[in-house]
Amino acid sequence: MKSKNIDAYIIPSTDPHLGEYVPDHWRIISWLTGFTGSTATVLVTDSIAGLWTDSRYYLQAGSQLHESGFALINPINSLKHDFLSWFSDNIVSGNNIGLDDRIFSIETIQKLEKSLDQKFVLFDLNCDLISDLWQDRPVMPYSLAFDHLLKYCGKERSVKIDEVRQEMRTRKVDYHLLTSIDDIMWLLNIRGNDLKYSPLLISFAIISEQQILLFTDESKIPLKLASEFDKLDIVILPYEETAGIISTLSKDSTMLLNPVTTSSNLFKSVHSGMNIIKDISIPARLKAIKNSVEIDNIRSIMIKDGVSLIKFFFWLDKKPETISEVSLGEELDRLRSENENFISPSFSTIAAYNDHGALPHYSATAESDYVVDRNGILLIDSGGQYLDGTTDITRTISLGKPTELQKRNYSLVLKGHINLALAKFPVGTRGSQLDILARKPLWENGLNYGHGTGHGVGFCLNVHEGPPSISPATGSDSKTTIQPGMLISDEPAIYREGEYGIRIENLLLCCEDYENESGKFLKFETVSLCYIDKSLIDFTLLNQMEIDWLNSYHAEVYDKLSPFLTEDERLWLGVKTASFISL
Amino acid sequence: MKSKNIDAYIIPSTDPHLGEYVPDHWRIISWLTGFTGSTATVLVTDSIAGLWTDSRYYLQAGSQLHESGFALINPINSLKHDFLSWFSDNIVSGNNIGLDDRIFSIETIQKLEKSLDQKFVLFDLNCDLISDLWQDRPVMPYSLAFDHLLKYCGKERSVKIDEVRQEMRTRKVDYHLLTSIDDIMWLLNIRGNDLKYSPLLISFAIISEQQILLFTDESKIPLKLASEFDKLDIVILPYEETAGIISTLSKDSTMLLNPVTTSSNLFKSVHSGMNIIKDISIPARLKAIKNSVEIDNIRSIMIKDGVSLIKFFFWLDKKPETISEVSLGEELDRLRSENENFISPSFSTIAAYNDHGALPHYSATAESDYVVDRNGILLIDSGGQYLDGTTDITRTISLGKPTELQKRNYSLVLKGHINLALAKFPVGTRGSQLDILARKPLWENGLNYGHGTGHGVGFCLNVHEGPPSISPATGSDSKTTIQPGMLISDEPAIYREGEYGIRIENLLLCCEDYENESGKFLKFETVSLCYIDKSLIDFTLLNQMEIDWLNSYHAEVYDKLSPFLTEDERLWLGVKTASFISL
Repeated sequence: MKSKNIDAYIIPSTDPHLGEYVPDHWRIISWLTGFTGSTATVLVTDSIAGLWTDSRYYLQAGSQLHESGFALINPINSLKHDFLSWFSDNIVSGNNIGLDDRIFSIETIQKLEKSLDQKFVLFDLNCDLISDLWQDRPVMPYSLAFDHLLKYCGKERSVKIDEVRQEMRTRKVDYHLLTSIDDIMWLLNIRGNDLKYSPLLISFAIISEQQILLFTDESKIPLKLASEFDKLDIVILPYEETAGIISTLSKDSTMLLNPVTTSSNLFKSVHSGMNIIKDISIPARLKAIKNSVEIDNIRSIMIKDGVSLIKFFFWLDKKPETISEVSLGEELDRLRSENENFISPSFSTIAAYNDHGALPHYSATAESDYVVDRNGILLIDSGGQYLDGTTDITRTISLGKPTELQKRNYSLVLKGHINLALAKFPVGTRGSQLDILARKPLWENGLNYGHGTGHGVGFCLNVHEGPPSISPATGSDSKTTIQPGMLISDEPAIYREGEYGIRIENLLLCCEDYENESGKFLKFETVSLCYIDKSLIDFTLLNQMEIDWLNSYHAEVYDKLSPFLTEDERLWLGVKTASFISL
Repeated sequence: MKSKNIDAYIIPSTDPHLGEYVPDHWRIISWLTGFTGSTATVLVTDSIAGLWTDSRYYLQAGSQLHESGFALINPINSLKHDFLSWFSDNIVSGNNIGLDDRIFSIETIQKLEKSLDQKFVLFDLNCDLISDLWQDRPVMPYSLAFDHLLKYCGKERSVKIDEVRQEMRTRKVDYHLLTSIDDIMWLLNIRGNDLKYSPLLISFAIISEQQILLFTDESKIPLKLASEFDKLDIVILPYEETAGIISTLSKDSTMLLNPVTTSSNLFKSVHSGMNIIKDISIPARLKAIKNSVEIDNIRSIMIKDGVSLIKFFFWLDKKPETISEVSLGEELDRLRSENENFISPSFSTIAAYNDHGALPHYSATAESDYVVDRNGILLIDSGGQYLDGTTDITRTISLGKPTELQKRNYSLVLKGHINLALAKFPVGTRGSQLDILARKPLWENGLNYGHGTGHGVGFCLNVHEGPPSISPATGSDSKTTIQPGMLISDEPAIYREGEYGIRIENLLLCCEDYENESGKFLKFETVSLCYIDKSLIDFTLLNQMEIDWLNSYHAEVYDKLSPFLTEDERLWLGVKTASFISL
């Protein structure tokens, strides 16, 4: 910093694509500080080396930063301690601020600059202090692209490209910059293995009326695919040349880009005279609506995924000895990996026993690992990436005899889950309107959970996929309504710190219900398939509609999964899914 | 237009304060075209004289514009036919556009300019073609200001001024421009009689650290009040000098104003170097939270207001002959006017029989007037302005024997109403999250209503008072959460075009419920008092919680109102409010 005359250096947890999924090559904060959480900002000045993160990571950061030389700055839940407030209060006029703007979004840079707009500071946006220091830095991921076949994805790439171009013409867009990798994978019907939990090939793309420029390592594209691309005027260019090519585009044109996922570095290369439309990408909106082939595949993979879960819970139930959280996750991953078309888990499997379950993003490690005995609450949140779709499901089960309070809390979460699953709503309804359905039974009992109720799910893409969501936040994209073909999770929860966590998650597919003089109405179809632990239900808290839903769901789970189970497993599942008859 | 070289002239339905309540002096469209609805835009060119309004007024506009020479441009429900789209499609490069920007908001002018930004047009913003043409134009309203006493408003004006200045200091605001009259009334604890349904005195104001400049006709302020103002450095200046004074303010300062309620004309007078913060006003946020004296008064006026309603419905029930909608409204207004501290109705009383009830904003006139016989559904929406608060209540009753479908629809509206009234929710919840509670029973049956569920209500001020609302729209102010002390309506509805309308409206007061480890929870107290017509309820559609709510509400109505009724009325109300016992 001294040699480059930098007074303050900022490091984010993001990579050049500014999404949730970051390869090890860009996990600078983890290398520098030891903190492995997904969201953080590091600031180094001559007087401080600090790390900011959000409240779900306070415990973890406190422990991982121990003796790292970095201080956790955000121990109290005060707005004045968020990074931007601290930054604007503590940076001195005349300071030089250094950062590598390849990994900062346009929006973040604008916020940084705005926070200091009363002060005279200089920003060095091309300041990469890390590459020279990080000796054993992991190389950029390298995998081969593969064709995502029509029987999986349901729509030719040429058709998708036409649809995007049609929308570009309507909006008078000459160039559409794609910075989110999953948008590019969807558009070109390709996948890769560059990331651990998402089948992606690192790339940027620019769509114009005549061409698509695909920026990636050319050697990652097999010849057969390259020749298919050639027919559609998809031109492969080196990943590193993205900014350079952008700078050559005519200033008398209009470009559509997403300011949240476009780096300041790429944006700087856009000609200042160009007309810029800032919005989420066209593929992001299109791919959120699953097509009929994708929908058939989704219904189908839920069977194999559900069978893996039943085999897992049966195995756990029958296993005489105790077992560790880590081993549980390994066994579930192993069972899923035997399924046809399996690629990888869709995220790091969460097997969280008792108080670990109260940490919504807990991931067992060798250090944290609990022995799972027969006297507590176990939360399992897991999913798979398959060529024919992506799953994400959470079950909470009781090992031993649950307390009345545990049953009460579980029943309230289940009521919220069912309440959302049974929603009927007119076209035009946003996720932020539906969120309360899952929370209402909790709110009526003075309970709540600190995260959203549901997220969109990709198709053989990221397990968290915007823009749809079901959350109290109106978010950056309040224009997104819940539409037929959207796949969204339904995961209300109760966390009792130091005791246990309860979360019940299925994926819901939005479908048309009917149309009348009041307009068109929509509903959800529950697609995930696994039993819900009745031993944790206080049935006196469920109304008849909720009991009917549970019985009917359990009958469907049994009918669809039992043909693929052993005789023992089938008998066991029969008991788990037997109807509850109210008196 | 020709003498002034204007090719297109635009007239809005707003006045210089850009609110919902407009004195006759500014009802230019009504004078020019005959259309009396509250929202419209008129455009005159050499080839067209057109009027745009929204769908709720299509029928009315079609009839009122007949032979006016003005065409209703918006007969089909197409976005391309909204005024701005039509305007940008039809205005020709080189045109001169004239308008009087004293009655256009900053936002509207910006939208007009943006819609034409590809065309070379000139705007003449100081173009008042109306004043010379309108011979018998109503004069500006003239009434005297009066002190709104502490026993009503609960907080000294000096304390309110201190609170606003404290917030100005926090936000580093030097000048706070107030353009919404109700904000000024609240701040200075005065009222007037310039408007028919709101006790307001037309004025602008500018708050600074040292002074408050009150722009109004000096002769409207009685001497005693003027002397009180003098002690607080509240300076009275002529209304017409507002823009001139604004132009003298130091450019090295910061001004807070609301771009939705500030006219382009006033905004133009602000020095271009001044730092402008655009937000809703500080008084708007403060006055939405009623203080404890106001809350006591609100609870108290609901008794006299409810007694008037019971006397009205009793009178209607006992009256042998049929009666007209207009006469119904007159009788209800007369009964209310006998109450202590009555000022005026809070809006034009809606007495809508059968298919008139399906028009949410119907107001009976001599031309439309129906005879109310004994075979239909009657919707009464009314309210009063009192020195000690403002009311707004809707009841729908059956005259004759209701059909099963009418009872079903009424019961669903009632379920929605109760569902919202019983809401419990954490601090931080927005109205757009709660809206679905009132709609859910309707949505589950393929029904809906096209307006919001609830609006904020002023205290001896406008009956529609932002920023709180309960509506699917996230609106312009998504920062507004529902907070203790807010008074909000709860009015779900079903409209069956050509048949009848059903709406049930009470006012809800937000209160604290309790606080626990999940945070602080809020609830509503229903403050409006009038029976709900049981003859329209299909009790098999209500669950026990809903029946309990109704019985308990009816017991409260009877207990609080019966002491003020005659023996006959009391017996009658006893039957109307008798408990329903489920079997």
